[in-house]
Amino acid sequence: MSDFTELWAEIAPVGRAESGGYLRYALTPPELTLRDWFRTQAARRDMRVTDDGNGNLFAWRGEPWAPGTVLTGSHFDSVPHGGGYDGPLGIVSAFLAADKIDKSRKIGIAAFVEEEGGRFGVPCLGSRLLTGAITPEKAASLRDRDGITFGEALGGTPRGHDPRIANVAALVELHIEQGRALTVPVGVASAIWPHGRWRMDFAGVGDHAGTTLMADRHDPMLTFAFTVLAANKEARLSGAHATVGRVQVEPNATNAIPSLVRGWLDARAADTATLERLVDEVVRKATERAGRDGTALAVTPESVSGEVAFDEALAKRLSDLLDGAPILPTGAGHDAGVLSAHIPTAMLFVRNPTGVSHSPAEHASDEDCEAGIEALATVLEELG
Amino acid sequence: MSDFTELWAEIAPVGRAESGGYLRYALTPPELTLRDWFRTQAARRDMRVTDDGNGNLFAWRGEPWAPGTVLTGSHFDSVPHGGGYDGPLGIVSAFLAADKIDKSRKIGIAAFVEEEGGRFGVPCLGSRLLTGAITPEKAASLRDRDGITFGEALGGTPRGHDPRIANVAALVELHIEQGRALTVPVGVASAIWPHGRWRMDFAGVGDHAGTTLMADRHDPMLTFAFTVLAANKEARLSGAHATVGRVQVEPNATNAIPSLVRGWLDARAADTATLERLVDEVVRKATERAGRDGTALAVTPESVSGEVAFDEALAKRLSDLLDGAPILPTGAGHDAGVLSAHIPTAMLFVRNPTGVSHSPAEHASDEDCEAGIEALATVLEELG
Repeated sequence: MSDFTELWAEIAPVGRAESGGYLRYALTPPELTLRDWFRTQAARRDMRVTDDGNGNLFAWRGEPWAPGTVLTGSHFDSVPHGGGYDGPLGIVSAFLAADKIDKSRKIGIAAFVEEEGGRFGVPCLGSRLLTGAITPEKAASLRDRDGITFGEALGGTPRGHDPRIANVAALVELHIEQGRALTVPVGVASAIWPHGRWRMDFAGVGDHAGTTLMADRHDPMLTFAFTVLAANKEARLSGAHATVGRVQVEPNATNAIPSLVRGWLDARAADTATLERLVDEVVRKATERAGRDGTALAVTPESVSGEVAFDEALAKRLSDLLDGAPILPTGAGHDAGVLSAHIPTAMLFVRNPTGVSHSPAEHASDEDCEAGIEALATVLEELG
Repeated sequence: MSDFTELWAEIAPVGRAESGGYLRYALTPPELTLRDWFRTQAARRDMRVTDDGNGNLFAWRGEPWAPGTVLTGSHFDSVPHGGGYDGPLGIVSAFLAADKIDKSRKIGIAAFVEEEGGRFGVPCLGSRLLTGAITPEKAASLRDRDGITFGEALGGTPRGHDPRIANVAALVELHIEQGRALTVPVGVASAIWPHGRWRMDFAGVGDHAGTTLMADRHDPMLTFAFTVLAANKEARLSGAHATVGRVQVEPNATNAIPSLVRGWLDARAADTATLERLVDEVVRKATERAGRDGTALAVTPESVSGEVAFDEALAKRLSDLLDGAPILPTGAGHDAGVLSAHIPTAMLFVRNPTGVSHSPAEHASDEDCEAGIEALATVLEELG
């Protein structure tokens, strides 16, 4: 059994649901179990563990935040019933790559908190806090579906921006690819599409489903449904991506016209202008339809990220180092995208044969993961 | 303060949510509190209370199930954030009407369980069990959203059909009207529209919202959205009612294409042929769209009720007795509709000025409720 196969088997059962997917929300028992596993792995390697007060964990070879340190790692948290590779592969690979390189290299392995935004709604929350992209107060007040705030889950207000991030020579995050564009085991990221989440509150008038005349209704489910179809059409027309994957209905009863339907629009495009046009057009059409349905629409941007272009020279250098590994963009957001505004940053992708991600069906072969670990070790040696 | 105002104030706070609506699901603490209140009211009037082993409570003046007994009452349970009148008004009115009539009359006051189907999915569950319209085994196995079965909530398998229901001379249920058709304080029901609930499971392929090309998707949210709009259109064209008020999404994450969207279609029409045509047409269009979306649709009828025509002569008699109270149909289902297949049955409606129901905004004036109680007393005297 390879080192990867063995280490992977240790975390595979943690937080696995009957669906085969994972429920590893930030700061819930399965994710806390993975954090304990992280501390154990660090201890086995005599690496010191620190917590940055934002929920991010770091294991260090050398002094914490020593100038010239190369940072790697990823996140443990999952989307609901997500795959096991998205996040944890980058952390497992980091420990195994650390085993392969010269022990004098100064490296840090990070486990960022709440990358998916699956619990508190804002993705890359840990890296945003670390870099000052969100205030500690705002982050502390974010609530999960049970009303628990991030501050409560963390046990206090996060510490926020840590200026020592500037000491880091470079960040390299290894991640499973989430489309089908990568046809060899390992690739290098060029850019992350601009993307965002917009909460759409469709308000109507709750009433009895049996007795209310169709003409008398103010049914927000109609406006919501129209908007789902409009977003899909606009995305197809503009070569962008738009998804409505999360819905909340009040009161959510079979025999009641809803008083409120809340839907989240996830939209992404290759450039910011296209993304803005897409969202503007969806909101315009939805508002027009709300007028016809006698409902009201309020749109709240929950997180909007501009385009991330990773350091082009660095990507080219890594590609050359890895025997001409392909350089490709992605529609998925990552902590590396947030950090790229502050330090030289690169990403390595491991092939995903079906392209499926955020699903129990997500998969990468052991051989490709091992190739990824080799590549990460090579890169850490080169940059450190 | 009138007797009604006083008695109404006793139950008004029970299960009231911040929304102003009620969370009084069957066999949960608020509904159990109302059952205790029911026992207290019965004791104050020296009425004996029995439980039929199905979750239905009865308070008797005279021997339980004595031949010639007139039954009245309604239900305590609510839809999520429903109004306070839908159900409880019929029970409060029953006790106050009992106070007004000759004490030699044999009457029974019923509190039927799970009329809304808000917890276990099948409406009129208590009256269906009592009359044998559902088997005890099937009822026992129904699950709420937390996976608890009706049998577990009840504390055992329900007893099912009670043949003594045939001893009842007549049932009269008083209920708040749920449309705007009643423009005087009190009316008499002519019929309940045929109606039903169909669960629609739209299955697709869960995947990453950011990285999955639009052309590669099998997004069940699209098929769902199309079906919501199609159901609305068909209902308008056929003069029927169709509503999708309840939705469940898996995994319900902002950044994931859903693997499953489950929606419930509530459909009602003035006659069975129209209702069947409506549902057939919605399913046909939805299935066609599923083919285009690369998704799959499975439809499960959860409860379908044929037209209920209340005893025409009885309705005319009550209307005459109540100074020509109007006789009108309703789109709402009621326990009286289930019982009407077995015993002479009538319903009295109390005016609802806005027509709003299944919503915190549901309201009837104290004066109209008092007129309803007078009418119910008159009817109980006449039939007893």
